Amino acid sequence: MDESTRRDSTDSLPFDVFSRQCPSRGTLEHVTGRWGSLTLTALHDSGARFNELRRRVDGVSEKMLSQTLHALERDGLVHREAQPTNPPRVDYELTPLGHEVAGRLRELIQLVEGRMPEVLDARNRYDEAR
Amino acid sequence: MDESTRRDSTDSLPFDVFSRQCPSRGTLEHVTGRWGSLTLTALHDSGARFNELRRRVDGVSEKMLSQTLHALERDGLVHREAQPTNPPRVDYELTPLGHEVAGRLRELIQLVEGRMPEVLDARNRYDEAR
Repeated sequence: MDESTRRDSTDSLPFDVFSRQCPSRGTLEHVTGRWGSLTLTALHDSGARFNELRRRVDGVSEKMLSQTLHALERDGLVHREAQPTNPPRVDYELTPLGHEVAGRLRELIQLVEGRMPEVLDARNRYDEAR
Repeated sequence: MDESTRRDSTDSLPFDVFSRQCPSRGTLEHVTGRWGSLTLTALHDSGARFNELRRRVDGVSEKMLSQTLHALERDGLVHREAQPTNPPRVDYELTPLGHEVAGRLRELIQLVEGRMPEVLDARNRYDEAR
């Protein structure tokens, strides 16, 4: 494929997700992972407590949400704050970088949601042809 | 979390990736999956043959690339064309919808690649605090 064209937009960057050794690939996987993308998008409008997030991200297990939040916190995308309340309460919110990433994810999600009729038509055509 | 705020942007859409039953979640997973996101982005500038793609998407196995391309073709994002050559040759290219999706993915990838220094600093702070 035309290397030069693709590279135009990324040459200036020292990181390349296409290289399996590049740490940016791991971060991309945290951000686009099955639960990472939904968790970041769910936090885009407001912070939330763990159980609020768990209800919002339909289908996520407590263990997977916990792992997802830790990975996103470690990458500096999510801020975890233990409130000095009784009973203790932990709030999660996006960092400024997390908000930027979530904004791009939301645009992608809105595109996918909005074009699902096309996707479902394509699936029907694909399945009928086989 | 503030449902109303988040819903502002998606209320008009009949599909919701936050619902585990919604077919849009499966499509989002094909698009953002470990290999789906790299495959779509790799095809954004030009079509490619299977082996070109496999070299480009460093680390993908033949089996995973094949599964990824089939899922993207079924969702109407990738067009597969067998060329009438000898030996036969199969080209893959994005559909118009695939190009739109790949464009959003590239913006997300460029953001992540460009902000990796921040991410790596955050990881160091996180690990030192533990």
